[in-house]
Amino acid sequence: MLWLQHYNIRGGSDRVGAVVANPARRSNLAHAALEILGNEGPRALTHRAVDGKAELPLGTCANYFPNKTELLLAMAQQIFELLAPEPKKLEQLAGLAAEEATAAYVEYVTERLLEHRYLAAALIELRLEAARSDEVRAVLAPVLQQGFEADVAFHRERGLPGGSNEVLLLHHLVNGAVLDAITIPMRPDLEVEEVVSQAAKRLTDTTPMPRTRD
Amino acid sequence: MLWLQHYNIRGGSDRVGAVVANPARRSNLAHAALEILGNEGPRALTHRAVDGKAELPLGTCANYFPNKTELLLAMAQQIFELLAPEPKKLEQLAGLAAEEATAAYVEYVTERLLEHRYLAAALIELRLEAARSDEVRAVLAPVLQQGFEADVAFHRERGLPGGSNEVLLLHHLVNGAVLDAITIPMRPDLEVEEVVSQAAKRLTDTTPMPRTRD
Repeated sequence: MLWLQHYNIRGGSDRVGAVVANPARRSNLAHAALEILGNEGPRALTHRAVDGKAELPLGTCANYFPNKTELLLAMAQQIFELLAPEPKKLEQLAGLAAEEATAAYVEYVTERLLEHRYLAAALIELRLEAARSDEVRAVLAPVLQQGFEADVAFHRERGLPGGSNEVLLLHHLVNGAVLDAITIPMRPDLEVEEVVSQAAKRLTDTTPMPRTRD
Repeated sequence: MLWLQHYNIRGGSDRVGAVVANPARRSNLAHAALEILGNEGPRALTHRAVDGKAELPLGTCANYFPNKTELLLAMAQQIFELLAPEPKKLEQLAGLAAEEATAAYVEYVTERLLEHRYLAAALIELRLEAARSDEVRAVLAPVLQQGFEADVAFHRERGLPGGSNEVLLLHHLVNGAVLDAITIPMRPDLEVEEVVSQAAKRLTDTTPMPRTRD
């Protein structure tokens, strides 16, 4: 997922919250919170723990993010900042023929997620939290939806095979493969990036897709 | 994943723990723990909460599962019990030609996971917990690995297209699609079961797969 998602997200972040004071401090806090959630799990994520991890005075996190939902939103946005592709690599990928390009983009996003396993884990934790809380869901859903739409738009503009349906399947593939890789790999003998790259080729070998609900 | 996994797991459950006293009580406790983990998240999962959910005297859960790892193992085994396919449905699927059968099995396991969303969520939470704790990983990995091997064996015996590599891709697909469906669906207009069924056909359209690491 998310090969260009972050551009969209970055643009949107100013609109969130009443006042965006000291964006660097906000980023630090969100980053610290992601390290805790991704490495230690939801039980460990408290305002106090975030202050400690960010090496800031007690009360700072609560000051910037008075409620948990605001903190979780900042974390979601921060994930996409931190997973942003490198412009040089994107330039290189831009030169590939459409048939090879899909697999290469999918391989690259998988690589980024596996380089930052705590972010991959934190993203899954945030999604599960959204399933349990309408409030969290309300702030997280637009971030993910925007990212997905950005990916679909990019996929189309880049002339990659298929459209929204194929991007959906590629998201499923990457999410499933990354969940496996960062937890208990079923086939540790295989290189994850190569597995998703091959699977991406098969998934974008377009045949009719399911009809939409009426 | 796991179209026949549970058979294997059920057979293995006697070997776990020193004494398996009152297996019905153990199942009840594990089931209650899964409901808490899947519906309320890891923060809510305590021995005390399990006793409450199972409507048993305080201390029962701690008595049956003195340490958390034993409880998590029982939960993992219980998931596969609860997700077991119906024999009648399996009989019906046994009649399908190999080309259609893969998609049908994948559709059926997706259906079962989406019927019991708390189990799907709990399974993901357990895997994430394994990523954070070597102890949890040590008990959970064999359960999942056995299940995967059982799926591969079934896939081969049933004459479905491909082998272990294809089963791996189908696991990734189902896990990614289910994570999406139970949290924030990117394409709520599509039927999940139909999406995975179509994708399964593409993924088992066999072409060369990645080489193993030497």
